[in-house]
Amino acid sequence: MRQAGRYMAEYRSLRERYSLLDLCRTPDLATEVTLQPIRRIDVDAAILFSDLLLPLEPMGIRFDFVEGEGPVVDEPLRHDADLARVRRFDPRDRLGYVLEAVRQISRALDGRVPLIGFAGAPFTLASYAIEGGHSSSFAHTKALMYGAPEAWHRFCDLLADIIADYLIAQVEAGVDAVQVFDSWVGALNAADYREFILPHTRRIFSRLADDPVASRVPTIHFGVGTGAILGEIRDAGGDVIGADWRTPLDEAWARIGSDRAIQGNLDPTVLLGPLDRIFAATDDVLARASGRPGHIFNLGHGILPSTPVEHVQALARYVHQKTRG
Amino acid sequence: MRQAGRYMAEYRSLRERYSLLDLCRTPDLATEVTLQPIRRIDVDAAILFSDLLLPLEPMGIRFDFVEGEGPVVDEPLRHDADLARVRRFDPRDRLGYVLEAVRQISRALDGRVPLIGFAGAPFTLASYAIEGGHSSSFAHTKALMYGAPEAWHRFCDLLADIIADYLIAQVEAGVDAVQVFDSWVGALNAADYREFILPHTRRIFSRLADDPVASRVPTIHFGVGTGAILGEIRDAGGDVIGADWRTPLDEAWARIGSDRAIQGNLDPTVLLGPLDRIFAATDDVLARASGRPGHIFNLGHGILPSTPVEHVQALARYVHQKTRG
Repeated sequence: MRQAGRYMAEYRSLRERYSLLDLCRTPDLATEVTLQPIRRIDVDAAILFSDLLLPLEPMGIRFDFVEGEGPVVDEPLRHDADLARVRRFDPRDRLGYVLEAVRQISRALDGRVPLIGFAGAPFTLASYAIEGGHSSSFAHTKALMYGAPEAWHRFCDLLADIIADYLIAQVEAGVDAVQVFDSWVGALNAADYREFILPHTRRIFSRLADDPVASRVPTIHFGVGTGAILGEIRDAGGDVIGADWRTPLDEAWARIGSDRAIQGNLDPTVLLGPLDRIFAATDDVLARASGRPGHIFNLGHGILPSTPVEHVQALARYVHQKTRG
Repeated sequence: MRQAGRYMAEYRSLRERYSLLDLCRTPDLATEVTLQPIRRIDVDAAILFSDLLLPLEPMGIRFDFVEGEGPVVDEPLRHDADLARVRRFDPRDRLGYVLEAVRQISRALDGRVPLIGFAGAPFTLASYAIEGGHSSSFAHTKALMYGAPEAWHRFCDLLADIIADYLIAQVEAGVDAVQVFDSWVGALNAADYREFILPHTRRIFSRLADDPVASRVPTIHFGVGTGAILGEIRDAGGDVIGADWRTPLDEAWARIGSDRAIQGNLDPTVLLGPLDRIFAATDDVLARASGRPGHIFNLGHGILPSTPVEHVQALARYVHQKTRG
């Protein structure tokens, strides 16, 4: 999950001067924001500060972030002909600023903690491009998926290649692990996931596995509200499968299978509550992992802007104290 | 699920002249809108046209619907002291217009199909009152819940009584079944549901069971994204448990237990797609119910405004053809 953000005063102070896209597109600033939580919180890895939507623009889909509304795409792709407009691109060229940030962050971290890179997965990226922003129903996306399945599959094939190109370039630039965010794919049931998503997401993981450089780093595959499709998500790929807090960690791990690692799954809103509740909920997650290797303790989704930074610091200390023996 | 709405031309035509709240608050109009889908679609029950939020105003929480934004509460309840401001009220007095609509609709239906009344459940109603509108994280609601559990429990006790009063009054006015919508409670994990929600929702179902009139009608308990907490929702009460499309119907029913009926669970976005896909997805739901008594075929959530009415008509015909033998 993104570690940096509005819950930190030093981030808010930068955001007074720069837009979210400025921060993402300026390697010095992306480096600074990536390092902010590393300086304050005893985490075991750094997460590249970037945005899922950056690949949209070089694909030919213009967007911006509107205060209070989130991302707004200029001309959402609503028809099958729109999907055919999308272009593959070379991330070394068009997302070079992200790769430069990766290089700067790697140098700054100097091996203290690993750096995690990331990209959005086909359903999640497609949903932004098609809905034009956040959605609760994904009505336009699913209407296209059901109504124009051939165009959908061609589009997602292309997205898979774009995402794989981008992740491979991130590994070449220095990230030590990559996370594939299919944040919104929990809106699909298992049958739809198998038909419309799995082949494309699997293509991303295959391309990473086939690449001589990218195959050296572990992969994480994450979604929210995916309790019913964890088995399908595992089948699509990922050394580590992320789970949100809705499904208890032991039950989620049973669905994923013991041959994969699991990441999760504290409800990020618990961090808004008092420390005793944070620690009790953490104890529950750790107990359900029962000390098995392959559990990466994490939040079940992104940190909320209203989270007190002291609570995040206390959580990191508590998890280390409980797990380092 | 609400049957009426923007997918019907006759509804859109009324909405050009009246606000959503006008429609809810004027018995003649609420009656007309309730009957619109009954005239066009071969459904087995009518659903009262109303809104989950109507009880907020007599509780002392003012709100309005803002075009494109949904409900907006004037002064969201953000602190435990705010929760204590909420008042119980007599629905016969303050929501008399809903009860008058129920009486008019019952007369108009004249026993052709039963009428389903409804109310929001504590978490869902509380979330609107506390967030001030729709939310994706329920950050304010959960922060209050975790941070001020005593105030939360007092508030939800009161909400449970208000909701029970309101549902009992609906049954007295003539509804033939009641549905309790905890639409957003799927944001909680099982442990939080048991601690913060279950006692209050159980209170609603107990009060209905203890009431000489209300105990005569069946109860439905519904939420979205509740795959991981279906057992807890069942324990809170309801003759029929609703399930959305994320969990396959047979798996959901196994979690609920065979002593309860189940309602669901076609993804409403499937209705945006072509007929062959609608029928195939319907076949899957019906096959998973395997002809067992106690399955109420329904959508897994509300119908979307962009749904072609012909698709809804075809779905109702198809389900009848497949299930009436």
